Parts: sequence; C-alpha cells; structure tokens
Amino acid sequence: MSFVNTSAFKSFRPTPESIPPPNAVLKFSIPPGMPVHIHPLNPVTFLLRAAEIYPDKLALSSPEGPSPVFYSYGVWTQRVQNFAYALKKFGFKPGETLAIIAPNSPMIADALQGALAARIIVCPINTRLQHHEVEYILEHSQSRLILVDHEYVHLVKGTKIPVIVSNDTGRVGDPYETFLSEGRRFSQERGWQGLDVEVDENAGCLLCYTSGTTGRPKGVLTTLRGSYLAAVGNSSDARMSKDSVYLWLLPMFHAAGWTYPWAITFSLASQITLRSVDYPKIWKHFLGSGVTHYCGAPTVQIGIVNDPAAKKPPQPISAIIAGAAPTAHLIGSLEKIGITPVHVYGLTETYGPFTRSYTHPSWSSMSLEERSKKIARQGHYFSTAGDVRVVYREDDEKTTNAGGKLVDVPKDGTTIGEIVTRGNLVMREYFRDPEATSKAFQGGYFRSGDLAVWHPDGAVAIMDRSKDIIISGGENASSLAIEQELASHPHVLEVSVIARSHVKWGERPMAFVILHPQHAGKWRGEKGEREFEKDLKAHARKRLPGFACPEWVRVVGELPKTSTGKILKTELRKVVAKL
Amino acid sequence: MSFVNTSAFKSFRPTPESIPPPNAVLKFSIPPGMPVHIHPLNPVTFLLRAAEIYPDKLALSSPEGPSPVFYSYGVWTQRVQNFAYALKKFGFKPGETLAIIAPNSPMIADALQGALAARIIVCPINTRLQHHEVEYILEHSQSRLILVDHEYVHLVKGTKIPVIVSNDTGRVGDPYETFLSEGRRFSQERGWQGLDVEVDENAGCLLCYTSGTTGRPKGVLTTLRGSYLAAVGNSSDARMSKDSVYLWLLPMFHAAGWTYPWAITFSLASQITLRSVDYPKIWKHFLGSGVTHYCGAPTVQIGIVNDPAAKKPPQPISAIIAGAAPTAHLIGSLEKIGITPVHVYGLTETYGPFTRSYTHPSWSSMSLEERSKKIARQGHYFSTAGDVRVVYREDDEKTTNAGGKLVDVPKDGTTIGEIVTRGNLVMREYFRDPEATSKAFQGGYFRSGDLAVWHPDGAVAIMDRSKDIIISGGENASSLAIEQELASHPHVLEVSVIARSHVKWGERPMAFVILHPQHAGKWRGEKGEREFEKDLKAHARKRLPGFACPEWVRVVGELPKTSTGKILKTELRKVVAKL
Repeated sequence: MSFVNTSAFKSFRPTPESIPPPNAVLKFSIPPGMPVHIHPLNPVTFLLRAAEIYPDKLALSSPEGPSPVFYSYGVWTQRVQNFAYALKKFGFKPGETLAIIAPNSPMIADALQGALAARIIVCPINTRLQHHEVEYILEHSQSRLILVDHEYVHLVKGTKIPVIVSNDTGRVGDPYETFLSEGRRFSQERGWQGLDVEVDENAGCLLCYTSGTTGRPKGVLTTLRGSYLAAVGNSSDARMSKDSVYLWLLPMFHAAGWTYPWAITFSLASQITLRSVDYPKIWKHFLGSGVTHYCGAPTVQIGIVNDPAAKKPPQPISAIIAGAAPTAHLIGSLEKIGITPVHVYGLTETYGPFTRSYTHPSWSSMSLEERSKKIARQGHYFSTAGDVRVVYREDDEKTTNAGGKLVDVPKDGTTIGEIVTRGNLVMREYFRDPEATSKAFQGGYFRSGDLAVWHPDGAVAIMDRSKDIIISGGENASSLAIEQELASHPHVLEVSVIARSHVKWGERPMAFVILHPQHAGKWRGEKGEREFEKDLKAHARKRLPGFACPEWVRVVGELPKTSTGKILKTELRKVVAKL
Repeated sequence: MSFVNTSAFKSFRPTPESIPPPNAVLKFSIPPGMPVHIHPLNPVTFLLRAAEIYPDKLALSSPEGPSPVFYSYGVWTQRVQNFAYALKKFGFKPGETLAIIAPNSPMIADALQGALAARIIVCPINTRLQHHEVEYILEHSQSRLILVDHEYVHLVKGTKIPVIVSNDTGRVGDPYETFLSEGRRFSQERGWQGLDVEVDENAGCLLCYTSGTTGRPKGVLTTLRGSYLAAVGNSSDARMSKDSVYLWLLPMFHAAGWTYPWAITFSLASQITLRSVDYPKIWKHFLGSGVTHYCGAPTVQIGIVNDPAAKKPPQPISAIIAGAAPTAHLIGSLEKIGITPVHVYGLTETYGPFTRSYTHPSWSSMSLEERSKKIARQGHYFSTAGDVRVVYREDDEKTTNAGGKLVDVPKDGTTIGEIVTRGNLVMREYFRDPEATSKAFQGGYFRSGDLAVWHPDGAVAIMDRSKDIIISGGENASSLAIEQELASHPHVLEVSVIARSHVKWGERPMAFVILHPQHAGKWRGEKGEREFEKDLKAHARKRLPGFACPEWVRVVGELPKTSTGKILKTELRKVVAKL
C-alpha cells in the first residue's frame, strides 16, 4: 500500500485505550445452557476471528485528510470492544437503538461492529437528508444516542437526544475518542468475555431508513442471521480473500454498505475509507494501494472511468455495480482499463445485493453490446439468498394469502411481472409499521415493486419500477430499456427517461440527457441541441419499437440524484408537470 | 477437460428419466406459515441454485472405467430428485436412515444430495470394514435400505435389510438406474415442488460411523445447518469458485467427504470421481482436466508427488491436507510441482476440517523447514466454526459442568492441553448413545481427545492423541513431534513412532520407517538396516531432546493404515507387544 511508506503511517499511534491487553480472549461469553452444536450467527464473530488470526494486519485505514488513521485488526477490535462498553456505560439495554450520522470514516465502521457487540441496533442516517427528515428518523427509530460526524452537526441541531460529536481525528481529545476511552475504562478489562453473545440470531441488527423517493421513509429492520449470511454471500460472490483490499465509495449508511463491513472481516481483508467520492483520490488508491474491490452505482463508475488519471491498475479490480444496470458503454470503459464489472441487484429490504448476473462462458464470443445486455440483467439469486421469482398476483379470494397467490410469469423474456424473494436475505420487518410489513410480505414473499421479465435461462431482468413504466398507446414501454438503448449513443454520458402526458397516446417517453464532455462542443447552443435531438431519435428508431422512442429530448447539465447516486425521477416529473 | 474430446464423452447419453422436463421449477415447496425472512439452512439448495444458473455446465463426472458418465447440473439435479422420490416410493419417512456402501462414484454423490432432499439421513459406510463391522453399523443406524456398489456386495451378505446394487454403469438396466427411474415415475412429475423443505435446520443430515481405532464405532449425527455452514467454510477457505474442478481422492464415505459435496455445489464448481486412488489416473486429470482442488491425507499426497508422471500442472492446484500434519519434505515436494499445500484439521465429529494453518506473509522469508513447522500446526478456526481452544480440566466439584470447568492453557507453545471446540461445526450427538455424547460434550465443548499446545500467535498445534504420548523417564514425548523430525531425514518416505516399554525409562520411542525408494538400495540387508538405524538416530539427536530420541528403529515395507490413510498405531502396538 502506497501509504505504508508515508510519514503519516509511520508516525501514527492509536490512543492508549485502543491498545489491546496482552493475551486478550477474543470471544463473547457464552451463557450456560447453549447447545454445544450451535452458535448463533453473528457477523461480529468474523472480526474477532480476524483479530485472532491476523492481529497485526492492517484492517481499517482512513489515509486521506488532515488526520489519517491506520488500525490493525488487533487494535481495531479493541476499539470495537471499547465502543460496546461505551454504550453499556451510557445505559443502553439490548435491543435499543443508536443513531449514527457520518460519512465513510472509522466511526461508522466501528459502530457497525461495536453496537452489535453490545446487542444494540444501529440506525445509520443518510448524511444528505434535510434536518426535518433526520428529525423524523431519530424520533421514529427511538434512538437513545446520536453519534455525529463534525461535518453534519447541523442535522441534529435542537434535538433532545444526547449527541456525541466525532472530529474524525482518531486523536486524544476528540470527543469520540473520549467516548471510546471511557468505554475501555468502564469495562474494567473484562474484555470480550464481559460481553454476552446475543443468543437470538433473529434479533435486530440494523435499522436503515429507505431514502424513499416518495412518502415517509420506512425503517428496514434486519437481523444478525441475515447480516451474517448476506456478508458470506457477498464475500463468496465477489471472491474476496485475505489478499483483498476494499475501497469504500458506497456510503456505509446505505443499507449498511450492502453488508460489506462484515464481508470484509469474513474474508480477513483490509478496508480503506474515504470521506467522499473523490476521483483523484480513488485513482491514487487504485494505482498505489492494491485496491481489489469497490461497490458503486453506475454514476460513480462513470466518474471513475472518465477521470483523467484512469489507467490500467497493477492488480485486478472488481467493480460491484448496483442501483441501476450498467450500460454497454460503461462496461466497455471499465473493461478497457482492466476493471471487471460485476452487476448485482437488491434493495435495502434485501440487505443490498441478493442477485447477480452470473457470467456464462458463451458470452465471451459476443459483441460488447450483446454481452452488456446479458450483464445488465439482474440474473440469479445469491448462494445464501432464498429465492428470486418474477410473479403476478392471482386474484383468487379463496387463497389464504392476503393479496392473492403469486404465480410465476412464463420464462419467455417478455411477460412482465414483479420481482419477489424470500428467506434469509429479507429484512425482518418495517420497524413500527406492521401494516407496511404485511403489505410488503403479501403472498409469503417480499414484493420488491420492481417490474421484470424472466428469461428462458432463468435470469430475471428488470424492466422498471412499476411507477416508471410508460404507457404509450396502450403499450408498456420500460423506461430502463429505453435508457439502455439511448445510452449506447456514443455522445451520451447519462440519460433518464420518464413519461410525459400526450394528447393522442396518453403518455410518451421524454429523455433527459447529459452529453459526454468530449462531445458536448459539437451540440452547443439551441440549434446544436435540436440537431442532437434529431440524431438521438434516429439512433433510437433503429433500436426501439415506435411506442418506446422518445418524443422529446432535453440536454441538461446534471440530473437530480439521491445521496446514493440513484436518479430522482420524481424531480424530473416535477419539471415535466410544468411543461 | 481432456475427456471432453473423447468419444466416451461425445457418445454418452443419460437415461431418459435423467432428462429434466422443460421449465422445471428448482425449488422445494415451502409449507405455509414459514416466516418470509427465514429459510432453513439446507445444503441441497446449493445444488438447486447451481442447476438454475448453469444447467448445462458439467457438474459430476466419472470419466474412468468401463462405463464413463458425465452429468450436467441440469441432469444431475434431476437424478437427485429421482433419488428422493425413489426413497419416498420405498416408504421412507423423514428422519429415517439410508445406508450406502460405495467407493467414490456417482451413486454416493447422488445419495449425499438426494437423501437430504427426501429428509432422510444418510449413513455412508466405509468400504474397507469387515462384514461384522458393517453388520453392526447397519443394525445400530437402524438403516431401512442399503445401496451398495457391486464391488462391495459381500459386505451385506445375509442382511435382512433390502439391498439395491449399483453396477456403476449409469446405463439402462443397471439396478441402481432402475431404482432412480422408478423414482421419476413415482414422482408423477411433481418435481421439486412435490418435496417439502425440511423446516428444522437442526434435523439430522449424515450419520457417519467413526472408524475408531479401538472399541465399537460411534455414529456421528450431523445437522443440515452444520453441513451448510461447514460447506460454506470449506468453499471460502479453499477459495473455490465456478472455475474450480474438484477431484475426488478423499472417500466420500469419510465424514461425508468433509462436506465438499456441498462446498462444490455452493461454489458452482465441477467434480470428478475416481473409484480408487490411482496415481497415473490422478496425474492424467491434474494435467488434462483442469483440476484445481483435491483433499487427501499425507499418505495420498506422498503417493502423488512420488508418481513418475508428477510434473507442474498447467493450472494452480490446492492440496487440502488433513488426517496428519504434512512434513517439510512433503510440503517442499508439493510446492516444487506448483501444488499449494493447505493444512486443515478436524474430526468426523466436526464435519471434517474446522481449523486451518493460516499462512502469514512473514513465512515467505523462512527456510522450508521453519515454514513447514508453521504449516504443520493446526492453526485457527474456520470462518463458520464457533471456536477452538486448548484447555485443561479444572477439577472443581462445585462447577456445574460435569467433568470440571475447562481452563485455557497459557499460549506459550509448550503447555499441553486438549483441543476443544463448540458451535455450528460440531455434530449434534452420537446416535443412540447419550452417554458417549454427554462425555464428549463435558464442559460445554466438544472434546477432541487431541493433545496440543497453544502458540503465542493463537495457533493450536497438536502434540498427539492422548494415547499416543510416550512417557519416557517421566517426560512427555510427542510421537508426532518425533515423527516430524525423523521425516526430515532425506531417506525417510514415511515414519510412525510409538511407545515401547523400557525397564529403566518406563517407555521409550520406537520408530517404524519406510525408506524412500530412491535410497532404499543404500541400506539393503540386515547390516544396511543397522547402519540406517545409526544414521537416523544421529539425525534425531541433533534435533530432539534425549528422552524423545528413538531407542529402536525398524525398516518396514509398508505401514498398517485405516481406509482413510491414517496409520494404525494399534497394529504397530500389537507388533511391539510381541517383541
């Protein structure tokens, strides 16, 4: 790793309370009466094991910014223990909730281990929410304490809940470090053996509020068992190992970083945090720190391949892509610099990814465009997931399942149904919302709300969110399918398509396009944009049925996005409503 | 794979009943009332998933012998389903036991999936047992049906239990194929949806009788949950993936092949079975079939590296070694031909391996001998295991644990204690033997009976089975440690050391040695053997304390071994008793 030779690395010393005692026993205490042949699944055990095997290995680092920190597995595990005891000192009881508001940084990495170790549920809050949204989540989650990064203190202004601020320094004097150090003192060196293992593996683990494009956010409550198994699935699927280095671009507050915090420790790998998605820094670490894995939405991936520093890194890198399907252009651009795109699909309710487009040997002889269409599919379910189906609802009132029996659509690649799943990679419930839970679980499956087809080879492929389907002249046009085709125009950097009402056809597609910087010059000005519109429509007509061709094209400088990089179609709809 | 171009491969057609119907639904039926967020862990689900993702991929092949067979995941999964229905047709009820006696061959691979699919416990019986031992196991296991390979029919002669013989042809007319085909017909094409998932993940899975060097064999009963998690641990630890090819040398009847039958399907990998450990055939597949993984005791590994065909294979191969620690000589020989030795440790009671010697970067600068001593340690526990400790029993009658509280030995690399473990990779019980179970589980841990030290870096290292310790002049000498040092003599191929009584010292070590064929000539005849004895003793004196140096050395042509390649010290003791 490039930073191993820096003076920041060489001179870094963790706080005294971060240093583990000699001969620390790295195991939870086991209450009497536990069967010898069962231990409850708990993702924190991966960290304890990593610290047993590789205590001196670099586990967690935050190498950028004014206060770089570098923690070995031994030291980090002690800090996680301190975190757990700090919660106990505060007065937390098992099953209560801790809120955390932070960018990718050691504090949130600690929380996703340390709170679990204290049997406390963590509620990671999106840093890009408004004050009133944060207020709602804090109240709804019944959070008893808030850990907040110094940059986001404004989000908790006026709250009555106790707050601890982190200056993200890792140095003595930082209030967060004081919190940890007091935890260590409170422990009286009882260590891990002073912490009881949670015997119920279906106990709550994370409480993640959906960023919900409409309506009030819902709190997705996951379990220890689900988090353990999702992490195993991600590690196995991404082929992570002790030689892997994971770079944090995906926010850890987003569906607990898709359970990668535990997939990394399961794999005995190292992780690097960056406070923000900063392309020059990303490339610095791609080229110098041995990064092998990262996750990100297509938007982030587009930024990576278009950065001037982009070139083939010395080691293979896997780019785990979700949030939207990657386009052929993006796949080609990643592969050209030796980055392997891995397309996965999931929702906060499914612990992040639970399906993947599994590659097939026959794809290697396909054209990039053909192959990309395969990679863009959501594919098959993960090793530790329970199932994935594409179904429609049979409205048979005699069935016992509220909402009708779920019937598989034919695997014909054209009939549209809804993606559903069940099993260990499904959340336990929407917190304090039994009505929403039972609605989401109608028919004995979790209903994703994503509309998809089922291909003859068993791969599922999303056509759209149900609300994003465009009904043009009675035909269902998938906005995603249209976007996929428009994105293949060489001058399109990003595109989003939504429905706009039309006198004759009911609805017609309207496309919002960001031009590729290298080609934007050609289409400058109003006249240029009109010419581009003509060009793009001609491109579309060659690839799409008439009802799916965009009726309107607008060139824009940027697209409205959620904090996690998803395009906010609700905002585009507001623009269209005013036209 | 070399055999893909053979006429045997090209002309092979599975039986008509092995062909899956179009649009098969590859999922168990889920009883009503199952929570949406839980699916019971069951290793058969890995096979169903593999058949969904890669139906046409080669899953299971038996390429040697008079009747080669090659099954894709789609076909094999149908055969497994037929197997499950054949058990139902026979009248099996969930939880009953099926016995199987077969070498590595498709039938036993089928059984380890198909019986589970029918919620039947499989009892795989060691093919090298005596008739009366098999009789005992069949009776004790309460087996209702026996599947037996044609080569082992003599083992079930006179039994009253129904028997189905396999001629291992995979062709119409083979009684085993008739059994499967009738299963298919009995299913009336209800498919996987006609088979209920086992809702209790702690239900019995395998019943493996320990080959027990002394006393009556005990039936180790494992669970579906444990088998699932052990398979995940093995796959992750061996870094298996869809590109892996596993070659079966370890008998599948031995602790269910260490759960590799399911680690392979979890990984979406391919497997090749060989009926016997045949070194020329092994090398044929190493060099021509893309083999990436195999498991075997050191004896098998020695045979592999000493085969005349041994040379660097075109792809990396991992040799997973257990049963005894590999010597420096073996490690060096494997590495020289590009095979990576992976040393794991476990017992039938722990689903096979549950610890591994995890390599450390600093080892690469060590000499082979130093490094081998590290690799020979049993190491740390697996990702999905619960724990490993080295303990002694505190004889405190006030403790609630029968047998006293278990106290960790100091991590000093010298204090000897017993290896214990607990959690998901521990068997559920000794079948129909609550007394033996409670004895093995004394203190809330499974007691392995293996004596070990705990190193400062947390690695455990076996010194001996308790009965194999040699007490010489009041000093405890580890027969394993002595063997390790004697094996470093360049002319030693294999060595076993046991205690022989001694007038003055109580016991003294006696070594039985097989000479390396290349050097045997030098020590021919009685005089030669006496000279070799002198030479080996001189070698020992440089490396071992006086009490651990062998007092007697005997050159032998072969060593008595169990069917799984472990040296039978009981047999050597009989030889010594007569001296």
